[in-house]
Amino acid sequence: MKICRIDMGTKIVSFEEVKPEYTGLGGRGLTSRIISDEVDAASHPLGKNNKLVIAPGLFAGTLAPSSGRLSVGTKSPLTGGIKESNAGGTAAQSLAKLGYKAIIIENKPENQELNLIKITPEGVTIEDAGYLKMKGNYDVGNILREKCGEKVTVMSVGQAGEMRLTAASIAVTDPEGRPTRHCGRGGTGAVLGSKGIKAIVIDPGKENKVEYHDIDSFRTAARNFSKSVLAHPVSGQGLPAYGTAVLVNILNEAGGLPTDNFRDGRFEFAESISGETMFETIQKRKGQTTHACHPGCIMRCSQVYNDKKGDYLTGGFEYETIWAFGAHCHIKDLDSIAKMDKMCDDFGVDTIDTGVAVGVAMEGGYLEFGDDKGALKLLEEIGKGSPIGRIIGNGAAFTGQAFGTERVPVVKRQALPAYDPRSVKGQGVTYATTPMGADHTAGYAVTSNILGVGGVVDPLKKEGQVELSRNLQIATAVLDSLGFCIFVAFPILDDETAFPEVANMINSKYDTNFDINEILAGGQEVLKLEKAFNQRAGITKVQDRLPEFFKEEAVAPHNVTFDFTDEELDKTLEF
Amino acid sequence: MKICRIDMGTKIVSFEEVKPEYTGLGGRGLTSRIISDEVDAASHPLGKNNKLVIAPGLFAGTLAPSSGRLSVGTKSPLTGGIKESNAGGTAAQSLAKLGYKAIIIENKPENQELNLIKITPEGVTIEDAGYLKMKGNYDVGNILREKCGEKVTVMSVGQAGEMRLTAASIAVTDPEGRPTRHCGRGGTGAVLGSKGIKAIVIDPGKENKVEYHDIDSFRTAARNFSKSVLAHPVSGQGLPAYGTAVLVNILNEAGGLPTDNFRDGRFEFAESISGETMFETIQKRKGQTTHACHPGCIMRCSQVYNDKKGDYLTGGFEYETIWAFGAHCHIKDLDSIAKMDKMCDDFGVDTIDTGVAVGVAMEGGYLEFGDDKGALKLLEEIGKGSPIGRIIGNGAAFTGQAFGTERVPVVKRQALPAYDPRSVKGQGVTYATTPMGADHTAGYAVTSNILGVGGVVDPLKKEGQVELSRNLQIATAVLDSLGFCIFVAFPILDDETAFPEVANMINSKYDTNFDINEILAGGQEVLKLEKAFNQRAGITKVQDRLPEFFKEEAVAPHNVTFDFTDEELDKTLEF
Repeated sequence: MKICRIDMGTKIVSFEEVKPEYTGLGGRGLTSRIISDEVDAASHPLGKNNKLVIAPGLFAGTLAPSSGRLSVGTKSPLTGGIKESNAGGTAAQSLAKLGYKAIIIENKPENQELNLIKITPEGVTIEDAGYLKMKGNYDVGNILREKCGEKVTVMSVGQAGEMRLTAASIAVTDPEGRPTRHCGRGGTGAVLGSKGIKAIVIDPGKENKVEYHDIDSFRTAARNFSKSVLAHPVSGQGLPAYGTAVLVNILNEAGGLPTDNFRDGRFEFAESISGETMFETIQKRKGQTTHACHPGCIMRCSQVYNDKKGDYLTGGFEYETIWAFGAHCHIKDLDSIAKMDKMCDDFGVDTIDTGVAVGVAMEGGYLEFGDDKGALKLLEEIGKGSPIGRIIGNGAAFTGQAFGTERVPVVKRQALPAYDPRSVKGQGVTYATTPMGADHTAGYAVTSNILGVGGVVDPLKKEGQVELSRNLQIATAVLDSLGFCIFVAFPILDDETAFPEVANMINSKYDTNFDINEILAGGQEVLKLEKAFNQRAGITKVQDRLPEFFKEEAVAPHNVTFDFTDEELDKTLEF
Repeated sequence: MKICRIDMGTKIVSFEEVKPEYTGLGGRGLTSRIISDEVDAASHPLGKNNKLVIAPGLFAGTLAPSSGRLSVGTKSPLTGGIKESNAGGTAAQSLAKLGYKAIIIENKPENQELNLIKITPEGVTIEDAGYLKMKGNYDVGNILREKCGEKVTVMSVGQAGEMRLTAASIAVTDPEGRPTRHCGRGGTGAVLGSKGIKAIVIDPGKENKVEYHDIDSFRTAARNFSKSVLAHPVSGQGLPAYGTAVLVNILNEAGGLPTDNFRDGRFEFAESISGETMFETIQKRKGQTTHACHPGCIMRCSQVYNDKKGDYLTGGFEYETIWAFGAHCHIKDLDSIAKMDKMCDDFGVDTIDTGVAVGVAMEGGYLEFGDDKGALKLLEEIGKGSPIGRIIGNGAAFTGQAFGTERVPVVKRQALPAYDPRSVKGQGVTYATTPMGADHTAGYAVTSNILGVGGVVDPLKKEGQVELSRNLQIATAVLDSLGFCIFVAFPILDDETAFPEVANMINSKYDTNFDINEILAGGQEVLKLEKAFNQRAGITKVQDRLPEFFKEEAVAPHNVTFDFTDEELDKTLEF
């Protein structure tokens, strides 16, 4: 394994051995470590002193199921703190097959430029990519596949990343070459754009450099682990059938589906945007109700959503997106929401921060709640780079300031996702305390709060939430480092044989002898590093809080507030 | 003396005795103390838990010369920290005559409203002011004088404050009733707007409630102090003759006039925007080259600037404004800059943050540097509330994010004023360390760095700057509490008899026995309170820094960088 360092100021590409202390790190563990080691926390996120690290997880390219997540780490232009954002798609596996432990992109061009990075078995080159100027991710992918071959993975930024907007994502193509998978959160696309990079093409070639210390043991453990994943009702049935959109009805029922910019916990039109409605619509239009975002994913929670004529409209159409443009904005038309998802994928913006921004613009009086045509028009402006497009494309916190409203659901300037923190309190603790800014995946308490996975913790009560969030945040740091999709947490939480098999996979691949506690201690180390970076960046526990209105306004139907004290929240990651 | 408390949620107005611990406080000392005592530092600046405190200085309405500054304190929506912004005009004296020590505005209406607060000898009332919706400060003043009498003081917000933009100011009318004086910095206008207040009318009536323990001693001290002010070459000659614009040529000569968004320290067209050119222009057009922003000001550094036809164009046209729209944006036409000043006064935005924002928009490619017609058109958008108007009206930091540029001269999100921190290093120390965000007035090191007042500290060297900034910041906190214009610092720094006369005035008015050191200790207390509030608000010493490019890019003609270490900066207010 090697590390590739790309200096975008001098255009020098160099290769390094992996330092001994980085050997056991991958994915988020490695991106956070390198950012922490190499980036001055006081740097401007869009300046030459920030870096962007791309790292496949420790299991990338292996036989481990659903382990193809790619981590991107940087200092976030959205939160001002450390950021790891991961995505599916085929990049992680391609990089692992080429023997890359990480790609470090540093420095920046003197003037604005647009470059293409090509990573092939022959090496890494930097080429001019002026011909891709202000093109969307769909076009970029089509042009680059024509130029570089049908089988390449394309990572790219759309117009938003070029403009360095703080909701800009990095798209990663799925097995069909569509830019439906995104490192969505925290503005990683703006950082790539600031480095003068429009796209990275990865051609893995034929050779596979992934090695195992003991492939037979690995294969056995992977097979056992896959069985656990498939045997669990959520990862084995719910997600494959309906995708993450299965959560619309579940959260609505639980009173935790934030509606009208967090004014209500239930949406009158939940049914029309539900996973079940989506399933029927896809079937009727001959799309794909189930789809793997990367080879080797056995949960296949993605899908292909066609338009009324039966032509491809969008894919990777997630619950959080449907919520953000749907219930949050009081929009009930699933086709309109699908078009917005497509636009976000194309322009390269985070669907959560952008959707929440649209709702905040409604709050600020720019549009009426429920105006789907207005919302579609508004989103188009992002691609055009008009002033209103730049406002929305900078996310919810920015949009709130533009329209002078205080009702802005963000933590560390990052938008809250699709679970009301008052009625799904474990999520609230995670939003407040994760070093990432409001992020549901950082400690997905929906498990025990709503789905009864890993035991039951009453979502409406404070008891047990801090411990739940803490344990999940630690476990997630591990999964993000291995390159696992977080949905493998479902079997891990309910089937006590599952996590030991993860340990077996680690030990049989890397010739180590870690037990579960040692592995979890590694997760804790990642969080410690991230928190320390944030502190050096000027983010203190004062920023580990939800906006005041969650403490002051009770949300229907359960009429609960977010009632944790500061001291309780501060205990979450106190280790 | 009494305190008036206005609850904008319940519309209840109440009056309170002054607490014993507040007796010795006025102006900034009092606003910072009340904000610190009553506002949870974690509150949203535009929410019901923030407050806005209006307080005349301790000498307001007295015979002390140039002591009519009005302090407004709040948690700033721009910096996120504590804010005191003070202005001339007639409000402070009117409030003092009515016997008000402070007005505290708290809570906010449920829905968006526009109200008028009337403060008269009969009491304080709240009236609907829907008829003033989206009117500029000039119109507001005209309408309210017609309604309430020619002699009232009007404090108001323009369109920007109504929209709660973070560069929104609060206008205070001058003796001619023009809204040329502003609490400009930090978005105090947005807070007033968030409280549903469009304007505050103050009718002082005939009675004067200002009292003295020993008026004769006070009169003697005031007379002696006035002599010192008038005898000093800066406060007695330079400022009355040319206004603050006298600094254009001086700073250009010193290589400290930031040009083209801080790319250069000299502006090729400095002469055409200089105080001398302004003086000749005003004379030719029969304006007023000298003008007092409040009765009793003996420096009279303001002016009335007429257009080519000889009609009133603007007034209170300051060096920092001329710099921001001039050298910073590479604009050389003084009439264009005067029109921009007028628009800022009318829409109610800080000329510094707005001017810097226009230059940052140029940096981001929205306009060309030097395009005065484009800049004028751009400013008009603020009044219209269009998306680009909202971007600019939210100030430089916001505009930088909108256009994805890292070259944004701000500290704590507040724009740097008209003195390059690399070639006027004492100012740089003040920008970095004052609790207010980049602010030249907080510790005006131009004195010893450029003007040779209070000794000479080489502006290009680090030696002595930290001490200079510290001492000036402490002294300024005192002057801001007394209601003095900071320009009285010139005689205080050079004439050792001046400050003892300030002590004499305090003691003869308030029956106290303070010596100079005790008075300065009070200034230190104000800074301590402000720093502690900021810490509770999540602002740490990591935010006491200049943007990286000042450390990395040397500025011509002296080719100097801002080379202080973090440790050196941290010593500035370490007490």
